[in-house]
Amino acid sequence: MKPVARRMNSEVQEIDPDERFMKIALGLAELGRGFTAPNPMVGAVIVRKGRIIGAGYHKRAGEPHAEIRAMEDAGWDVKGATMYVTLEPCVHYGRTPPCADRIIKEGIKRVVIAVLDPNPRVHGEGVRKLREAGIEVKVGVLEKEARALNEAFFKFMETGLPFVILKLAATLDGHIADSRGNSKWISSEASRAFVHKLRGEVDGIAVGINTVLVDDPMLTPRDVYPARFPRRFVLDSELKIPLTSKILRVPPPTVVVTGAKHSEEKKKALEERGIEVWIQEKQEVDMKEFLKKAGEKGIQSMMFEGGGKVATSIIGAGLFDKIYLFLAPRLLGGGIQFFRKDPPLPVDSPVELQIETFKRFSSDLLLVLRKKE
Amino acid sequence: MKPVARRMNSEVQEIDPDERFMKIALGLAELGRGFTAPNPMVGAVIVRKGRIIGAGYHKRAGEPHAEIRAMEDAGWDVKGATMYVTLEPCVHYGRTPPCADRIIKEGIKRVVIAVLDPNPRVHGEGVRKLREAGIEVKVGVLEKEARALNEAFFKFMETGLPFVILKLAATLDGHIADSRGNSKWISSEASRAFVHKLRGEVDGIAVGINTVLVDDPMLTPRDVYPARFPRRFVLDSELKIPLTSKILRVPPPTVVVTGAKHSEEKKKALEERGIEVWIQEKQEVDMKEFLKKAGEKGIQSMMFEGGGKVATSIIGAGLFDKIYLFLAPRLLGGGIQFFRKDPPLPVDSPVELQIETFKRFSSDLLLVLRKKE
Repeated sequence: MKPVARRMNSEVQEIDPDERFMKIALGLAELGRGFTAPNPMVGAVIVRKGRIIGAGYHKRAGEPHAEIRAMEDAGWDVKGATMYVTLEPCVHYGRTPPCADRIIKEGIKRVVIAVLDPNPRVHGEGVRKLREAGIEVKVGVLEKEARALNEAFFKFMETGLPFVILKLAATLDGHIADSRGNSKWISSEASRAFVHKLRGEVDGIAVGINTVLVDDPMLTPRDVYPARFPRRFVLDSELKIPLTSKILRVPPPTVVVTGAKHSEEKKKALEERGIEVWIQEKQEVDMKEFLKKAGEKGIQSMMFEGGGKVATSIIGAGLFDKIYLFLAPRLLGGGIQFFRKDPPLPVDSPVELQIETFKRFSSDLLLVLRKKE
Repeated sequence: MKPVARRMNSEVQEIDPDERFMKIALGLAELGRGFTAPNPMVGAVIVRKGRIIGAGYHKRAGEPHAEIRAMEDAGWDVKGATMYVTLEPCVHYGRTPPCADRIIKEGIKRVVIAVLDPNPRVHGEGVRKLREAGIEVKVGVLEKEARALNEAFFKFMETGLPFVILKLAATLDGHIADSRGNSKWISSEASRAFVHKLRGEVDGIAVGINTVLVDDPMLTPRDVYPARFPRRFVLDSELKIPLTSKILRVPPPTVVVTGAKHSEEKKKALEERGIEVWIQEKQEVDMKEFLKKAGEKGIQSMMFEGGGKVATSIIGAGLFDKIYLFLAPRLLGGGIQFFRKDPPLPVDSPVELQIETFKRFSSDLLLVLRKKE
């Protein structure tokens, strides 16, 4: 045996083959980003004698699941093979027939699953059904990575609440607008283009009424190819929103969320224009109640795009899962802070975050932040 | 000719050999960082028939220059060779004899120089002398990189003013201390350790009197191996500094800079303890005047370590060359901003910076900023 060949063999053996194939399945799943909602992203590969003979991913809700596409890709000749799939195969009839049944029927011998489906109609049932049919099932290979891939889906399924993204564009001294409320433009064009991409990946976008009054935004994903248009929400305790706002005129329709103090007349005027109005019992819109109702309406992920009042309430109540903070290398020396606390926090008990990743966007820097673990 | 050999040859030809050897000389120069002041960092290599036969760098003021060390390294057998040196060889007697004379004497045939010496006693003279001796001289190879290497030295030689570094540690919402002035500790241990390293690389460190009153810092480079201790400066318009301050008790002595309104008695008390007091004519310490005098005293680089008043005045007057901003992933929702402007700047005419580099320090992020070009 040549030394080089021996060294190569030992290197290959260091990687667990189940992890190696699951990593490929996770990479495939990622290809569906932005297009699978309300379904999660899923990838699958079919392996026989250490070689991939079929691969597939879930492309779009209503289209075949990853498992089916992988089997199709293999030409259905999959008897005795192993399937790697990033999420537990389904057992229920949705828009497509159950994957578990088809896996059994096609004679797959072993199924390796990254993570159980959090959907209570599937959770553990897929595994049970496969095992009852005599298939060897292994669960938990790269589970953490598989959960991270569909973090919004998992949070929604497990809590009924949307995954909350807070998007902010601030100067290096923490201002999201100058003292006159003007925020056009703190961040670079490249940062703003990325925000349009993000909009195309979430189910909902929410802003406070001040942002509508000052900026009159459309909040649509532009210059990108979105799978769908996110629902837009304006948090407007007193229904101050002008009927001429772009967000009310540019389709699809927007939802306005208001409190007890709103004018019935304005509400009627909005509803006459096809605008949905959600009414809360308190005078001020309560963020938790809003998120709960959004969850009930099937909103799996919600991006808040400001302004300071909304950001402060989201951060203060710890309601965010992720913050996208675009930092522009500029200083204003005063203006509107994205987070205000009265009195401010002492240095030994601040809001503690952690930087998940950071990336340059032309002149700006994007920090992706989470709560400190 | 084998295809691989042919390909390798063509790859080598794509890089200009002068640039390739100068890059090596620049890398050598870098080894002296922190130890060469008041001299610049310099590196040199000697090349014969495409091969390096000698290499050297300037290690420490008073010790041989890079050119001499490279010739020594080659065993003095350098007749007919080419020398690559990152800075114009000197022509004056300092603590060591002129390098130009030695280069001529040793029979070097060609000298490639990255950049002319900004020191008026040398500028262009070194090149002239070499050329008069019949040596072929090429100037400007990787000039930009060579200037950047010794940016403080170049600024000082060209303007008489120190290179100004502003060091800040702030939360993501722009606060350098909480509302009670407490700043211990906003940044991570790793960030603070790096600051000690930076202290060992500058000639001077300056703080405002408030920082002394609130934090009572020593401002010495600790847990590092500094080439020298930087001079410490306290900007203290009214001589409020307590005689018991650590900065006055821990050697080497500190300079206190004050204005017209200071108490003569306090001044005397300071001077009796061996503390130098610089007196300015205006009531408030003027930053430009301070930097000018520091330059006259041979301070080539000055690091300002806060607090808010000092940072605001440095940024506001555009006196900084570089900002080291340590960003801690924390939020206070209020407190002391590092830059305040009354009224604040409008969003369309902020202080414009650019991110030169960024780097993670444990939980923090370090941004190195400059004025926007």
